[in-house]
Order: sequence, then structure tokens, then C-alpha cells
Amino acid sequence: MNVEIKQAYQRISKYIYETPVLTDDYINELLNNTTYFKCENFQKVHAFKARGAINAVLKLDRCALNKGVATHSSGNHGQALAWAASLAGAKAYIVMPETAPEIKVESVRRLGGKITFSQPTLADRERVLGQVLEQTGATFIPPYNYLDVIEGQGTCAYEIFKSGVIPDYLLVPVGGGGLLSGTALAAREYSPETQVIGCEPANADDAYRSFRQGEMVPVGEADTIADGLRTSLGDITFGIIKSHVHDIVTVSEQEIIDAWRWITFMLKVVIEPSCAVAVAVLLKNKEKFKRKKVAVILTGGNVDPGKLRLIL
Amino acid sequence: MNVEIKQAYQRISKYIYETPVLTDDYINELLNNTTYFKCENFQKVHAFKARGAINAVLKLDRCALNKGVATHSSGNHGQALAWAASLAGAKAYIVMPETAPEIKVESVRRLGGKITFSQPTLADRERVLGQVLEQTGATFIPPYNYLDVIEGQGTCAYEIFKSGVIPDYLLVPVGGGGLLSGTALAAREYSPETQVIGCEPANADDAYRSFRQGEMVPVGEADTIADGLRTSLGDITFGIIKSHVHDIVTVSEQEIIDAWRWITFMLKVVIEPSCAVAVAVLLKNKEKFKRKKVAVILTGGNVDPGKLRLIL
Repeated sequence: MNVEIKQAYQRISKYIYETPVLTDDYINELLNNTTYFKCENFQKVHAFKARGAINAVLKLDRCALNKGVATHSSGNHGQALAWAASLAGAKAYIVMPETAPEIKVESVRRLGGKITFSQPTLADRERVLGQVLEQTGATFIPPYNYLDVIEGQGTCAYEIFKSGVIPDYLLVPVGGGGLLSGTALAAREYSPETQVIGCEPANADDAYRSFRQGEMVPVGEADTIADGLRTSLGDITFGIIKSHVHDIVTVSEQEIIDAWRWITFMLKVVIEPSCAVAVAVLLKNKEKFKRKKVAVILTGGNVDPGKLRLIL
Repeated sequence: MNVEIKQAYQRISKYIYETPVLTDDYINELLNNTTYFKCENFQKVHAFKARGAINAVLKLDRCALNKGVATHSSGNHGQALAWAASLAGAKAYIVMPETAPEIKVESVRRLGGKITFSQPTLADRERVLGQVLEQTGATFIPPYNYLDVIEGQGTCAYEIFKSGVIPDYLLVPVGGGGLLSGTALAAREYSPETQVIGCEPANADDAYRSFRQGEMVPVGEADTIADGLRTSLGDITFGIIKSHVHDIVTVSEQEIIDAWRWITFMLKVVIEPSCAVAVAVLLKNKEKFKRKKVAVILTGGNVDPGKLRLIL
């Protein structure tokens, strides 16, 4: 498998932020360990997705770029691809469900993405994307099940190791598995003593089940506050995860909510509910992580403004 | 005046965090400039006050340390001094008003501070502090009107310059003036082309008036949401500010509130209302800062959990 994370880092590093790795005395005291938080909520488009998108776009040749790139997304990948394409002087065609929140539609538009709306079903999103690809000749950049995207996501863990932090455990939220598989490949290469642990909502536990059973078990209706993690693994991400991830653990909705509140006030960061899943795993397994070095990827900060209120 | 900020930085740097300097594409696009945010909300005790406190404590000799340090504070300086003293193996006597929020009392206690309660008036706080000093022989470390504290606060701007950021303007909230005077001295020495601007709530505008009139005008009843900025300048901080600060500007309560909401969602950070004052100045003076490099010190993150709610 041709994944070169260090080369990807060199390719994309001038376009992305090298996000800070924060640690906090009081958190370490409470957990009796040393925890490092890699803050991708401060990344371009405020999500790690910027890494995979820009890496995939920069690997296209001029001829492909001239025809543009396309994807379907109601979330951060759509924004990331629009952002990446504009940097490369390419068009980005983003298929969004007509039910997408206005704030996300506006954001894709602001970044220069050309939006086509579909019905909110996966079937219709794929149908509309198919039409767009046919009409434009654009290259489809999938959100996670795609090696160039996985390679880009791996640069996040690479930056952690490069900063001198070699954790015993690295906690990563898992939805489609792009970040988790990229992280696992980065650890295998640059920090083989680090155990990579996927963190998943119990209400969307396809990765947990698939990992345990050794074969893909797609999730049905995923009802979780961690809206970025509702998707199931792809065949490529599952293959990497099966071989290179050390464990996958799940947490309940209440644990996710509690972890979200906790990290907001303890670390002073605004994060999406999806990253609180990894924080919840950290808090739930205090014994396991005692006296260890633990790194947690805070994957993004695009929380719905309606969900976070300043009360005066 | 014997203020050596670089030496202070070398003295305290292994005890404090070198906090990140964040910038954000979209903010820069909206403001048509380049703005850098120095994130002291990620500092020890989540406030820049850690710098001045640890610098003052480390400058004491062993004999003084054996008797401890003392202050009166209902806010971040009390926590910072308790934290600094415990690092130096010294006792910290903190006089707090009996009306102080339980969360701040708990925090000082957790950090090892010995609390004596007073009536909430300044007169009684000073009376009780006098008793404590007499009984213990501890050294009084004032919150701002004290050269060793001012010197420590200056290390924050020093880190900005040291990171390679040489801003045209540096925006700093002003209450008692410890951070503003330390910043002005740092800029004079290490970045003389930078204009340092004090940012003050219009409802607590003693620094603004004093700066304009050239003599100290204490503020009466300061009613502002920026609770860290209700205090008046001291004679030492005023002297430095008068000579080395380029301007002081004020903002309304509504502008502070709007800036607080704005920066929370735009930059994904949790900050105290007091730092939103500098953000409000940034937003209000877009024309002045157009195409400039601007640095803003985000002074702290200790927002009352009741004021920030996650809604699910």
C-alpha cells in the first residue's frame, strides 16, 4: 500500500496550520497521567478534514484539476474540499442534502464550492453526485475510504510525534475511519510503541463490532449526538484498522455529553461533540491510562452555535 | 527602572506554558488584516497572572520564602500566587471576600493556598491582609502595582515577539495595568515598532481618563461584565503606561458581549469576558487595523461555568 505520510506532511504543511498540542496540569493531576490534546479544532476549516482534502487535491495532475473535484457531504469534508480546491485553483462540486443546516451551506459557498442539492437519502446523494461527475468530469474525492485522504489524515499524528510527544496511547474518534486508519499507519511508521485506540459512540458501533468480528458489520440507524461519527467504515479503512489499530472502545451518549462539558471548562476549547467521544474514553478508562502518556486528537470545532450559549 | 523581561522569561519559562499564538484564515479575511491571538487562556491556572506571580515568587530569597507570600484577591491573581508559592515550596496566604464564588475558593484551596475571609470591601480586605502579614511575616505580592509582577507579565509579549510575530499593533485589556505596563516595556525593548494599545470597558474607564488627562483618575463604581478589569491603575503601572503605551481605547458592554460570542465561535476558544474587551477593540476599529499585523492577548479562560452552557 502506497501511503507516505511524511511526504504527505511535506506536501501539505504550508497550507495547513501546525496545530498546538496542549497539556494541562490540573487534568494530569486528576487523571494521574500526562495527556496531550492535539487541537485540530484550530485547523483550517476547523477540522482535521482539511489535511486529507488538501493532500488528495495536491496529488491530482493539472489536467484533473482543470476538471475539478467533487464529493457529497453534509459536514466538514465538504467544507474541507471546497477550501482545498480553491487553493489549487480548481472547482469543487459539493452535493449536499437539501436538509443541510444553512450555516454549513453558507460555509461551503463562502469557500467557493459549487453546491448541488439532493434528497437527504444516501441513494439520492450518490445519484446526484453521479450526474455531477458525468457532467463535469470532476474527480470524486470520497470523505474517508480513499488512500490519499487517509494519508493526509495521518499527518495529524505525524505532527504529534514530530513535536517530541511519543504517547503510550493515542485516542482517535472513529466514524468512517479515515483519521483512525491514517493515524494507525503513522504510528506504525513513526511511533511503533504507541497503541492506537479507536473511540466510538455505543449508538454507532459498527467499527467496534467489525473489529471484534473481523468482518465489516455496517451500522443501521445511528442515533448519536456525535454527528460526525454516524457513518460506517469503508473497505479500505476497515482493512487498515483491522491490521494496525490496537483496540476500539465505545462510550454512551451520556458519557459523551459529560466529556464535552468537562473538556470545554477544563481545557478552555470549543470542540464538536464528535471529538468528545475520545475524551469520554479517556475519562472512562482512568485505571488503564494511569501513569501513562496519552494523546487525544480533538478533531474539530464546528459546533452548532445554537448548542453553545453564552449566558450573561 | 530595573525591569529585565528577557531574564524574567528565562527565570520562569520552565514553570509556565509557552502558549500558542493562533491565527485564522477566515478572521483575517473578514478583518482584511493578519491577527494573532496569544492564548493565555491555556496558561497555568488559565490566566496570564501565572507569569507575574511565579516571577515575583522566584525573586524572593529563601528566608522570605520560608515565611510565605500573601495577597488579597477574589480572582486569578489569588490562584496564580497559590500555584506559584506551591512550586517554590512556600506558603500562600490569600485573603478573599466572603462573597467570592465557591468555585474560586475551591480552586485556591486545591492549589494549596491558605484562605482568610474578609468583608467584601477594599478597606476590610486590606485590614485582614495587614493582620495576616503581621502574624506570618509573609511578603505581600500585589496583583499589579509591583515591578516583579509587571516584569513577569511582560514575558507574554516577549514570547509573541520571540515566535517571530512583530505586530504593528498589540491589543491588551487594562484593569490594574500590570499586563499593559509589562507589555509596553517588552515592546519598547524587543519590538519598538509595535504600538501597544490598552483596551478598556467604557464602564470602567479610569485608564482611558488617566491617560488622556496625564494624571490618575480613579474609577468609582465600575459596573462591567469584564469583571477582571474593574480595578483602577496603580501609581507604578500608570507611570509606565503614561510613558510607553501608545493609546487607550474603550468599548461598550454590548460590544464586549458581541465580541465574546464572536471569538468563541470564530476561533473555538473559551475565554473570560475580560479578554473580549481587546477583541471588541479589534472589531470596532477595522479601518485602523486594515492590512496591518495585529496581536491580541487573550488573557484568560476562567469563565463561570454557569455563563457558558452546552445545549443538547
